[in-house]
Amino acid sequence: MAKGNPEVTLNILYRGPVERGHNWQDLFAHHLPQVKWHTWPNVKDKAEIDMLVCWIPPREYQQDYPNLKVIFSVGAGVDQLNIPSVPQHVQVVRMLDPGIQQGMTEFVQMSVLNIHRDTLAYVNMNQQSQWQQLPGVSTAKRRVGIMGLGNLGQAAAVGLQNLGFQVHGWSRNPKSVANMSCFHGNAQLQTFLQRSDILVCLLPLTDETRSILNQQTLSYLPQGASIINVGRGEHIVEQDLIDALNEQHLRYAILDVFAKEPLDTQHPFWQHPQIWVTPHVAAITQNDSAGQALLANVQRYLNNEAMAGLVNLSAGY
Amino acid sequence: MAKGNPEVTLNILYRGPVERGHNWQDLFAHHLPQVKWHTWPNVKDKAEIDMLVCWIPPREYQQDYPNLKVIFSVGAGVDQLNIPSVPQHVQVVRMLDPGIQQGMTEFVQMSVLNIHRDTLAYVNMNQQSQWQQLPGVSTAKRRVGIMGLGNLGQAAAVGLQNLGFQVHGWSRNPKSVANMSCFHGNAQLQTFLQRSDILVCLLPLTDETRSILNQQTLSYLPQGASIINVGRGEHIVEQDLIDALNEQHLRYAILDVFAKEPLDTQHPFWQHPQIWVTPHVAAITQNDSAGQALLANVQRYLNNEAMAGLVNLSAGY
Repeated sequence: MAKGNPEVTLNILYRGPVERGHNWQDLFAHHLPQVKWHTWPNVKDKAEIDMLVCWIPPREYQQDYPNLKVIFSVGAGVDQLNIPSVPQHVQVVRMLDPGIQQGMTEFVQMSVLNIHRDTLAYVNMNQQSQWQQLPGVSTAKRRVGIMGLGNLGQAAAVGLQNLGFQVHGWSRNPKSVANMSCFHGNAQLQTFLQRSDILVCLLPLTDETRSILNQQTLSYLPQGASIINVGRGEHIVEQDLIDALNEQHLRYAILDVFAKEPLDTQHPFWQHPQIWVTPHVAAITQNDSAGQALLANVQRYLNNEAMAGLVNLSAGY
Repeated sequence: MAKGNPEVTLNILYRGPVERGHNWQDLFAHHLPQVKWHTWPNVKDKAEIDMLVCWIPPREYQQDYPNLKVIFSVGAGVDQLNIPSVPQHVQVVRMLDPGIQQGMTEFVQMSVLNIHRDTLAYVNMNQQSQWQQLPGVSTAKRRVGIMGLGNLGQAAAVGLQNLGFQVHGWSRNPKSVANMSCFHGNAQLQTFLQRSDILVCLLPLTDETRSILNQQTLSYLPQGASIINVGRGEHIVEQDLIDALNEQHLRYAILDVFAKEPLDTQHPFWQHPQIWVTPHVAAITQNDSAGQALLANVQRYLNNEAMAGLVNLSAGY
C-alpha cells in the first residue's frame, strides 16, 4: 500500500493498449480515487505496486514487484500467465466481461450457422462461378457438442438452443446445466464426441486439455462432422486436424486460435479449402464493459469480498 | 369435380420434383382419400383438374384446364405465376411453410452476423494469408432495416432482435409490428434507409417493388452499409449495386436471388470481393412441413373455410 499519500490505498500497474489504459484510468479516477494508476513501464517504486492488470505480465515480475497481491488478466483465459510460475501468495483473476461473453456467443452462433448452411462450400463455389444447391437438414436435426461449460460455454449453448440446434456439453469435471445433456471426464468423452455433428471447443488450456483433440479423439466424431475452435490453438493437434479434413472424415473447420499467433503466412490452414481462419477475434475484450468488471472486482477486494473470476491455481483455470 | 368415381371429390395436378410428389401423394392418400392425385404430364382428362400444385404452371394452363379453381404455389412467392395472366375465377395461394420461415430466419441471422463480424473481409484475407484484426461494434449499436413485413420479414426481425440487433422495418402499406419501428410507403423510404446499417430485402416482387433498390435509393443508405437480398433479384438494379460497392459507399452484399437464375458464369457478382453469391438457398420448401401446410389448406377448401396464404390478385401478393 502507498505510504506517502494517505489518500492512496492501492497501486495498480497497467500493461496493455494505450487507449484502453486511458479509458480505465479515467474510470478509476472517477469512481475509486484512492487507487493510483500506473502505466507500464513508468513505475518509480516497484515495491509500491499491489495489482497488475495485463495480458502478458512484465518479465521477472515475480522478483521485481515484491508486494504484488493480485494479477488481473484482461482476457477470459489465464494460460498466458504460466500459472505454475505465479507466486503462491498472488491471486489470479480472469476477466468475466459481459462484452466477451456476448462476442463469443455471437461468433459461435455465426460459425455454427455457417457450417450448418454450408457457407464455406458456397463461398468456394463463388470462386468457380458455380451454381449448385446443396441438401440441408433442419437445426432440430443438427447436434452441436460444446467442450467447456464455464460462463462462455454455457452462454454459447443457450444461444445455439435459441437457434433451434440440439446442444449437449462436456467438461472435465461433472457439471449440471439446465435443459442440456452434460457429459464429463475421459470416460464419457467418446460418447460425447460420437454425437457431435458440430464440435465447439471452449475449454480452458491446462496440462489436461492440451492436445485433447487429436487423431484418436477426432476419429470419434461422426463422418462429416465439423469443428469450431475458439478455445486455444494447443487444444488441437494441427496436423491431425488437417489429416482428418483431407480424408473427408471431417467436413469444415473454423479456427480462431492457433498454437502460434499470428499464424505464420506459410501455415497450411490459410489456404485449405475446408478451413476458415480468423485472427483471434471471436471475443475481444470490450473496454467499457471490461472496465466496469475490473472496477467492481477492485471494489470487492477493498471490501474484503470474493472477486469474480478468481482462478484456482492448482486447477489452472 | 370427378364424375366417374363418387368417392373422389377433388382432383389435384402436381407439377414438380418427383420425390416431393411421392411424399405429398402419400400424405393425401392417407389423410384425404377423396382427393385424386395426378402427376403432370400424366393427365387423361384435363377438364377433371380442380387444383394445380406447382412452381411454374404448365403452358397455356388457362385454356387447357377449364375447371381449374385454385393454384397452389410451392414457394413463398407467386411472382413466377405472372399474376395478371391468371384467370379471374382462379384463386392463387402461396406456401406458408413453417420450414420456409425457419430456413429464411436462419439465413438472415447468419448473413447479418457475417456482415456484422466482417466474415467476408476475413475470408478474403485467408486467400492472402493475412492476419489483421478489424474493429467492431456491439449488436446493440448495429441497425438492421428489413424491407417487407410479411410472415417472413416479421420472423426474421424477431430472430435478429433475439441476437441483440436494433431492428426496424419498412413495407409499402402501413403495418404495425410489436417492439419495432415501422415505416411505410415512398414518403418514409428515405428515412428508413438512412438508418439501415444492414439492409435486408424480403419484399414480394410486384410492379411497385421492381428496381426499388437503385442508384438513388442505395445512396440513402449510410456510408459503409451492407445489403442482403433474399427477396427477388429484380428488386435491385444490379449495375447500381456494383457501382455502390466499387465506390465503397456500400461495404458488402450477400445475394441469394438474381434477375436471371442460375446466375450466368460470366456475371460480375461471382468474383466480386465484396459480394457473396448463394444459389437461391435461403429458404427451401421442406417437403414434410410444406405437405402439411398444403393438406391443411385443401381441407379448409373442402370445408369452405378461408385458405392460409390466399393472394390478393390485384395487389399481386
